[in-house]
Amino acid sequence: MEIRQMNEQARNTNKARLLISCGDQPGIVAAVSQFLYGQGANIVESNQHSTDPEAGLFFMRVEFEIDNLHERADALKQSFSKIASEFNMDWRLSLASKRKKTAIFVSKEPHCLLELLWEYQNGDLDADIALVISNHENSKGLVESLGIPFYYIPANKDIRQEVEEKQLQLLDEYNIELIILARYMQILTPNFVSKHPHRIINIHHSFLPAFIGAKPYERAYNRGVKLIGATSHYVTNDLDEGPIIEQGVERVSHHHNAEDLKKIGRSIERSVLARAVNWHLQDRVLVHGNKTIVFN
Amino acid sequence: MEIRQMNEQARNTNKARLLISCGDQPGIVAAVSQFLYGQGANIVESNQHSTDPEAGLFFMRVEFEIDNLHERADALKQSFSKIASEFNMDWRLSLASKRKKTAIFVSKEPHCLLELLWEYQNGDLDADIALVISNHENSKGLVESLGIPFYYIPANKDIRQEVEEKQLQLLDEYNIELIILARYMQILTPNFVSKHPHRIINIHHSFLPAFIGAKPYERAYNRGVKLIGATSHYVTNDLDEGPIIEQGVERVSHHHNAEDLKKIGRSIERSVLARAVNWHLQDRVLVHGNKTIVFN
Amino acid sequence: MEIRQMNEQARNTNKARLLISCGDQPGIVAAVSQFLYGQGANIVESNQHSTDPEAGLFFMRVEFEIDNLHERADALKQSFSKIASEFNMDWRLSLASKRKKTAIFVSKEPHCLLELLWEYQNGDLDADIALVISNHENSKGLVESLGIPFYYIPANKDIRQEVEEKQLQLLDEYNIELIILARYMQILTPNFVSKHPHRIINIHHSFLPAFIGAKPYERAYNRGVKLIGATSHYVTNDLDEGPIIEQGVERVSHHHNAEDLKKIGRSIERSVLARAVNWHLQDRVLVHGNKTIVFN
Amino acid sequence: MEIRQMNEQARNTNKARLLISCGDQPGIVAAVSQFLYGQGANIVESNQHSTDPEAGLFFMRVEFEIDNLHERADALKQSFSKIASEFNMDWRLSLASKRKKTAIFVSKEPHCLLELLWEYQNGDLDADIALVISNHENSKGLVESLGIPFYYIPANKDIRQEVEEKQLQLLDEYNIELIILARYMQILTPNFVSKHPHRIINIHHSFLPAFIGAKPYERAYNRGVKLIGATSHYVTNDLDEGPIIEQGVERVSHHHNAEDLKKIGRSIERSVLARAVNWHLQDRVLVHGNKTIVFN
Repeated sequence: MEIRQMNEQARNTNKARLLISCGDQPGIVAAVSQFLYGQGANIVESNQHSTDPEAGLFFMRVEFEIDNLHERADALKQSFSKIASEFNMDWRLSLASKRKKTAIFVSKEPHCLLELLWEYQNGDLDADIALVISNHENSKGLVESLGIPFYYIPANKDIRQEVEEKQLQLLDEYNIELIILARYMQILTPNFVSKHPHRIINIHHSFLPAFIGAKPYERAYNRGVKLIGATSHYVTNDLDEGPIIEQGVERVSHHHNAEDLKKIGRSIERSVLARAVNWHLQDRVLVHGNKTIVFN
Repeated sequence: MEIRQMNEQARNTNKARLLISCGDQPGIVAAVSQFLYGQGANIVESNQHSTDPEAGLFFMRVEFEIDNLHERADALKQSFSKIASEFNMDWRLSLASKRKKTAIFVSKEPHCLLELLWEYQNGDLDADIALVISNHENSKGLVESLGIPFYYIPANKDIRQEVEEKQLQLLDEYNIELIILARYMQILTPNFVSKHPHRIINIHHSFLPAFIGAKPYERAYNRGVKLIGATSHYVTNDLDEGPIIEQGVERVSHHHNAEDLKKIGRSIERSVLARAVNWHLQDRVLVHGNKTIVFN
Repeated sequence: MEIRQMNEQARNTNKARLLISCGDQPGIVAAVSQFLYGQGANIVESNQHSTDPEAGLFFMRVEFEIDNLHERADALKQSFSKIASEFNMDWRLSLASKRKKTAIFVSKEPHCLLELLWEYQNGDLDADIALVISNHENSKGLVESLGIPFYYIPANKDIRQEVEEKQLQLLDEYNIELIILARYMQILTPNFVSKHPHRIINIHHSFLPAFIGAKPYERAYNRGVKLIGATSHYVTNDLDEGPIIEQGVERVSHHHNAEDLKKIGRSIERSVLARAVNWHLQDRVLVHGNKTIVFN
Repeated sequence: MEIRQMNEQARNTNKARLLISCGDQPGIVAAVSQFLYGQGANIVESNQHSTDPEAGLFFMRVEFEIDNLHERADALKQSFSKIASEFNMDWRLSLASKRKKTAIFVSKEPHCLLELLWEYQNGDLDADIALVISNHENSKGLVESLGIPFYYIPANKDIRQEVEEKQLQLLDEYNIELIILARYMQILTPNFVSKHPHRIINIHHSFLPAFIGAKPYERAYNRGVKLIGATSHYVTNDLDEGPIIEQGVERVSHHHNAEDLKKIGRSIERSVLARAVNWHLQDRVLVHGNKTIVFN
């Protein structure tokens, strides 16, 4: 086990991911693969997607290994920027060994937080969980027992601005790259959202676009649906309208009351959020307008 | 095979289903089961459901076998009506051997019709398909080759009233007990719907209540959902708002364009509609307000 | 919340479950429901199952509420035993408020244990977890932090007999009614199993009967299956051959190596085991030969 | 609609698929994409897979469009063969417009045949169904009504050799490239199989490797499984042991007897086989030892 982890670590040390979005045109794949071959890189995984011809967009993710990645990362970027400007690419290169600094926001219900911490302890979540922020105190003990700082910041809509100022300051302090709303039941202001574009992942407890907004399980119960769901998406300024990363459903029946739906739903929420977060952490999600491309 | 079918037929000959809805109160199950025992019936399957205490309603379905059912059916109903009035029940007794006379309405896309006819030929659909009505002619050959009358009635919203008059007359002529809208792309008027309450089953090509109305696959594509679905429900006067009988979903991704979603969706629609229709035909569906209780 | 829990508690106080197995014959349901009605009980949920006519067996579960259940439980049993002997029933009456004393056995991999403890903390597992026994020490801290006794008993096949003696003594001491093998990687002897018939629930990390025995994920990988699964079953003396309670699967592809299958599998194992255990705790599982009837 | 089909046709006219298997080594993707770029091809979809380092194999599928494909196909192959020999590739180039000549073998149960014919009529199966061969006559009418030749060849194990001779002659006559065993209940000899390596697709009515061989539903019923499945695989000389292309499952319960499992199973078989066949027809399946790589 220990040896496997060392190998894992060693392998990640020289593993990088190149993400590209640009207008579709001939020669992109040839140029990128020729570049990587010229640098002595070994492609581990490669995915690409072209939209319909009207939109005419091209997306690519390449995971590759290269000797002495850390020493050479800057030079690599420098060299690649020539190709990038030739094809007018939006692009980024991220190192697999550099785990993203992550903040988890949670309210009273801890199940999504617990799932993420469980995956984290198990080595299955490729994040550096830097802090947890909550408007309730009930998760404090658990979080601190794992050595993760816990910040209790009471919140309600009347004090939204000052609450967000404190939160933004903490995010800044910890150099946070990803914010996970693990059933955080407060609405974020456009100011907050604009500071972390496509870097806030929420879990909504319905199968969007059904039951946008409050009390989705009660409304699902009242509508008499036969399947309930959960949706993980990037947060934008339109409530529950941001790009969807992942969704899941479970079967329900007339036996279940609204409380039962909540209980069944907790299990869906946990797994849907964990999958979406993992894909983001592995740089598998690209955003295109209000949609995602998930290379999984 | 032939022997099995005869046995099947013989068994169904003496099989009946009793469906009950009433206010919840002690003693219902005892009274019903005592009654059936007294009549010499053998209970094959029994299901019941009590709503939450506020609504305080009770639903029951009992499938039983009894000797000489056909000769005794009237007397059975007579006897049971005393218990029924004691508990103030809505109830009905249906004979399994009496297959429901069914009309299928279809427009141009034949996949749901084909699925139902396939189940029908295979002996897996417990209906007597009496006729097919369509505003397109493309399914005529297939339907008639199975010896089922096909009525081509062109339809559009300007001639809705006269179209429905013709349709209602046919339904009357054939003593139709169940109408299946197998992707029939015309809206029915309140007059039509009111003549067949909870006896019109529709398949909507989305996971309701998401994407009510027209072009759900295009809208699902534009929203970037990761699962698409279909919903079978009883038709009421509120478009796509009637009691849901069954729903299904399949996973989709950024690889799929709107045409792909339609193709994947056809497969979901076929199986969801077939399940819903089968449950209705076996008297497994009870309606409670805008919800269903499905004893399956 | 607190009020809801009190109500929940109050409701469970007067809730009981009657489980019956006997030869199929007319009048059973009438007799049982008449009895309960006569006692003033209110039936909350009732399920029954008749096997095929050759086997000719009948199974029933009735959940009911009755005033002053605790004071009257003995008298109820006394009265019912007359009906039971008339129909030659195997039966038991269990009180919903009396949570089953449960032992969890675990080896090194903690994911199934964690899932059960998570459900337990969340109030979603209707057990009284009395102790955890492990042949590894890694879960000790977590278990004890919840106030649950943890017993570290090193085990291997050479000392099987003395290990089991210690375990059986502990089970006896704590009056254990249910043993959960939450990825306990030691084989139990017939002597151990015979002392807890149909009261030991295992999770096997394959879709039984495929991949019985050791290293199922490696073998699934080598066979190139496209779905992997997990199975929860009662333990008998035939390895992985006991009555199946629940199974689950997830899709895999050529992208996944054996390690990936293990990781995906952990998630299946967790949820399959949790469902099986919950059904057992709620007296929803009846055993018939080498099969289960699950009234869920 | 008509215009869309013409466009579809036009697009397929210039669409080709390049499939490659070889030892993994740096520079493959660069060489292939550089080659296609140099030829003026536009990559529509590209997938690749590297096995674990021990096996050290590389697989690739590229779908591309190129002007005047038909005139240039031979020259393209000629040019590419230089790259292929440099990297020691197994490869093939197939034209999307050239639909594979396909034979369907069926016995008495027609559901899988019907599903394939349904997809075929609907334009959703990219095959040229050249003939149907059966050892029963019951599907003759249906098949011939679609203008497809139907050959009734009675078969049993005593006349296996002469039966296969007739079948092989027909396959030869029709230049068959794919044989689909759509519930064909006769075992093929090694001689037959060796003549069509990885070009015979079977549907087995269980979740392999569980229930290899005869009567899987009866055995699933007797084992008391909670999910049943179906498996589509390439036929090899080891019964039900060939490379798996696709699998599917559905939930069952104690309510279902063996006949019910067969009925539920038919629906799984239909969709699993149809998916597997479609992937093969689109050149999405590569075989590696006893496993498949499915680029879908």
